[in-house]
Amino acid sequence: MSYRPPVTEQRFVLDHVVRIGELAAHERFADATPDMVDAIVEGIGQLAEGEYAPLNRFGDVNNPKWSPTGVTMPEGFKAAYKAFVEGGWGSIDGPTAYGGQGLPFSLANVIIESLGTANMGFTLINILTPGAIHALMAYGSEEQKATWLPKLVSGEWNGTMNLTEPGAGSDVGALRSTAELVTDGPMAGQYKIRGQKIYITFGEHDLTDNIVHLVLARTPGAPEGTRGISLFLVPKYRLDADGRPTIDNGVRCRSIEHKLGLHNSPTCVMAYGEDGDSYGEMIGSEFGGMRAMFVMMNAARLLVGNQGIQISERATQHALRYAADRVQSARASDPAAGPVAIIEHPDVRRMLLRMKALTEGARALVYYAAGQSDRGTLGDDAARARTDILIPLAKAWPTDIGCEVASLGIQIHGGMGFVEETGAAQHYRDARIAPIYEGTNGIQAADLVGRKLSMGNGEPLSALVADIRAGAQGEGNLLALAAACADVTDWMRAASVDDRLAGSVDYLAMMAVATAGWLMRIQHDAAKAALAAGEGDPDFLNAKIATARFFLDRIVPEALGRKAGATAGAADLYSLKASQLVA
Amino acid sequence: MSYRPPVTEQRFVLDHVVRIGELAAHERFADATPDMVDAIVEGIGQLAEGEYAPLNRFGDVNNPKWSPTGVTMPEGFKAAYKAFVEGGWGSIDGPTAYGGQGLPFSLANVIIESLGTANMGFTLINILTPGAIHALMAYGSEEQKATWLPKLVSGEWNGTMNLTEPGAGSDVGALRSTAELVTDGPMAGQYKIRGQKIYITFGEHDLTDNIVHLVLARTPGAPEGTRGISLFLVPKYRLDADGRPTIDNGVRCRSIEHKLGLHNSPTCVMAYGEDGDSYGEMIGSEFGGMRAMFVMMNAARLLVGNQGIQISERATQHALRYAADRVQSARASDPAAGPVAIIEHPDVRRMLLRMKALTEGARALVYYAAGQSDRGTLGDDAARARTDILIPLAKAWPTDIGCEVASLGIQIHGGMGFVEETGAAQHYRDARIAPIYEGTNGIQAADLVGRKLSMGNGEPLSALVADIRAGAQGEGNLLALAAACADVTDWMRAASVDDRLAGSVDYLAMMAVATAGWLMRIQHDAAKAALAAGEGDPDFLNAKIATARFFLDRIVPEALGRKAGATAGAADLYSLKASQLVA
Repeated sequence: MSYRPPVTEQRFVLDHVVRIGELAAHERFADATPDMVDAIVEGIGQLAEGEYAPLNRFGDVNNPKWSPTGVTMPEGFKAAYKAFVEGGWGSIDGPTAYGGQGLPFSLANVIIESLGTANMGFTLINILTPGAIHALMAYGSEEQKATWLPKLVSGEWNGTMNLTEPGAGSDVGALRSTAELVTDGPMAGQYKIRGQKIYITFGEHDLTDNIVHLVLARTPGAPEGTRGISLFLVPKYRLDADGRPTIDNGVRCRSIEHKLGLHNSPTCVMAYGEDGDSYGEMIGSEFGGMRAMFVMMNAARLLVGNQGIQISERATQHALRYAADRVQSARASDPAAGPVAIIEHPDVRRMLLRMKALTEGARALVYYAAGQSDRGTLGDDAARARTDILIPLAKAWPTDIGCEVASLGIQIHGGMGFVEETGAAQHYRDARIAPIYEGTNGIQAADLVGRKLSMGNGEPLSALVADIRAGAQGEGNLLALAAACADVTDWMRAASVDDRLAGSVDYLAMMAVATAGWLMRIQHDAAKAALAAGEGDPDFLNAKIATARFFLDRIVPEALGRKAGATAGAADLYSLKASQLVA
Repeated sequence: MSYRPPVTEQRFVLDHVVRIGELAAHERFADATPDMVDAIVEGIGQLAEGEYAPLNRFGDVNNPKWSPTGVTMPEGFKAAYKAFVEGGWGSIDGPTAYGGQGLPFSLANVIIESLGTANMGFTLINILTPGAIHALMAYGSEEQKATWLPKLVSGEWNGTMNLTEPGAGSDVGALRSTAELVTDGPMAGQYKIRGQKIYITFGEHDLTDNIVHLVLARTPGAPEGTRGISLFLVPKYRLDADGRPTIDNGVRCRSIEHKLGLHNSPTCVMAYGEDGDSYGEMIGSEFGGMRAMFVMMNAARLLVGNQGIQISERATQHALRYAADRVQSARASDPAAGPVAIIEHPDVRRMLLRMKALTEGARALVYYAAGQSDRGTLGDDAARARTDILIPLAKAWPTDIGCEVASLGIQIHGGMGFVEETGAAQHYRDARIAPIYEGTNGIQAADLVGRKLSMGNGEPLSALVADIRAGAQGEGNLLALAAACADVTDWMRAASVDDRLAGSVDYLAMMAVATAGWLMRIQHDAAKAALAAGEGDPDFLNAKIATARFFLDRIVPEALGRKAGATAGAADLYSLKASQLVA
């Protein structure tokens, strides 16, 4: 099933939700002219449709292959990645000092969306590299930046994040990998890295001629827990005197995981310092690893939220085309007219509009967060704080609805949806990882009711709720949900840690739907205004109004039903001992 | 991951929801003594745990194998199925005239639950055979019954349902297979069957020495649509003079599907009359096929609803044990105590209790429907009507929550949940078919707002809502949901066909959660009474109270959030043409 980039929709959301024009009014983003934005949105759509999409099902069936000497990607992936690098797509928002174009992250976000909708697994390589770039920009020395950034920015080398170990998943502080300073000889000043890391996405592959691993490890005598962790840059190949990656650095991929989905990306078990020494450079200060990790994570979290859009958009396109083609049964309200395409049956239409409305809601939320992040870059402190509030919402809710939308896509296909050849099942399998990695959605919710609830004396979170309320005038359901969000926010602030956590996931869903509902309402009004002015494509604008109405009339009220869960407290959860639960 | 049959829970629900004692008070079910019930619940639990459970992951990896001469099941399946037949488990509720034990269907339902929780795919063979038995009992001639029923009842032969063709899925009436009467020669009176059927579960395998296919087909000149369909019994092997299945009947399996899940069951493309003649006997009257199909379907729909319990129970057990073992992070409310098993973290507990509460709600709903079906068998017309109302609820909602619970099971496992070796992903893949087959959940919802809403002048449906309201006294959330169900029922009755269908899935969810909530409230009170009387296992009873509270306090209010969707109507769904939706 081919993929068509939703360029009109992407452009509309950039205009009315990101308000890209406001960004371009700043000197720093002056290059983001309307023509440039068009060229990026349309150009990446072509690359995604032409090069990435055809590999999606192919790579699901023909997986990356592991051998003791490395991982070989399926046929065609190398050429597609080359097209990405040569097109300069990796460098759009990269630092200009290191070969980047310095455009807004909002535009890089569109690039990732289009590529990932075409091929979610493959595009993971592009989601993790920015984390490495951000960490180096924030904490690298000038020499480190000069050495590593140009090739990371261009995408010629990719970056990885090495956090997890078998005994250290969500609890990063439990990690045991070590880093020992070399005090003399030619490698003096570097660290010898030892340990194994798991779940390393694109930790090994044959798409680039080097791989830049960012590895969390402990120096000798470091304190226990997260306070004792430092960050190291450990390349697959060290650079020779000419700066070429030719020196084996003892980094090995021990195996790749056999996963439920996302077969287009190798998930590696990485070993450092087991087959020869692995040398790494410390990035930032000793014990500054967690701070640097959050820099990497924040970039990655928004882009994982973006994956929720990706899988939803692809599943929705897939289902819409099937439903428009598949003729089955007459409409119950008009039996005499004979069999119709199933898109004409009311419940199938309801499912399709739900898929479309959820996808557009997720896109609005993630794009909005990206736009706030860009404003933060420009020095707008309120926008920076709002980005912090939005990150858990924009990571968790879109990835949750990604699973729902992919599941609806299977349902639309009926029995054929359960047969792998149809391709609908791949979306369902691929979608399921996004609520887990880069901090599970439960951890996002804990972040929301923990640090984000209280940061800035609670102002930034309350300001978001206030904006939603102000924007909800005349929209009864959204007004009711915004009021409920305000109530629950007050409740949370007075509650114990356990009570907050017990309601955190429900609260996050309410906040995310309220925010997305507000942004859908904004688009609804913009579409009406454009229609009235006779501007834009009427088919697109009418469809936008229909999906916005579906979101506000049906999806927003469901979120209200979660208020009871949000404020139920923890006591009942602990009325039993663990041993009573596990029969 | 091993499976432990929840015998205390099953027994409790039989006592308080099915009220099995009332059934045993009738002469027909007098054999269902407490000792007999205990023996069945415990005995099937042992078979399920000992023989079926160990094959679940094995068969997921080592799939049934197709060759031109037939399908070979994975190692061990034949022995396990033999143990099932020899234990007499297939015949529990079979007709006594044909070797059955004539016990309540409620008990057969427990048998299917335990086997299917151990191995959902494998147990499909036991879910479809009862449909063939019911169709033969209802419409077969005495000779047909005498010939085919004893081996079907014992399970020595299995039954299949052959409805679907490539162009005839949900629209059964579009089928094209033909049946031509043989008018002379030794086969006179039989029909030559020709055509291909798809998605035939256990249509071919090596577990039994014959397979009894029930096939829908058209006689020459039959009217178009469902009015022209007749039902035929077409064996894999015809019987020789000694009654042994030795004569090849030209029935061929052309291929088996490559499915998302349920790899423990072969899903076959069947060809009739292509390699030699396939002879069949008509069951019932010409053009009586649809009526007979509904007899098969109703039995199967409850047992597919049962699969929702199966997958939920298995995923919940799996997740509970993992969460009790996996140590990760200290509790946020008590960092000084150090890392704890993740079952102690509030949001993990919330997920686990949600899984358990949904599973128990689904079990209550399906068991209740089975008990009402048994009362119908005893001549209770109100119970028979209630069974009809309950079937769409008990098929759709448990299979929907089966997917949700399996997904939560993955989430509990974190990254390991996405790795196939863990086994959590299998539940997620297996679960996804149940909302589709035996009538998609959308078709169940259409049945609810169509025939079921108006049957008996609407009395049976209104009586169920009234019973829920009466049982909800003092339970605010449930009372509110019951009132909303009553409102929506009134709205539906005044609405157009399209408006009803547009809200049908939301309405079904509300009705199912209200019914399950009512049954959870009944169990909550029974558990409190037992505790007060000092009867039963306090750990079990306290856990029941906790899950009932979770259901009533958190899950019931969510269903209220679907009222807006149930009554939103169809107009907005049709504000766009199909061509505007499919960009």
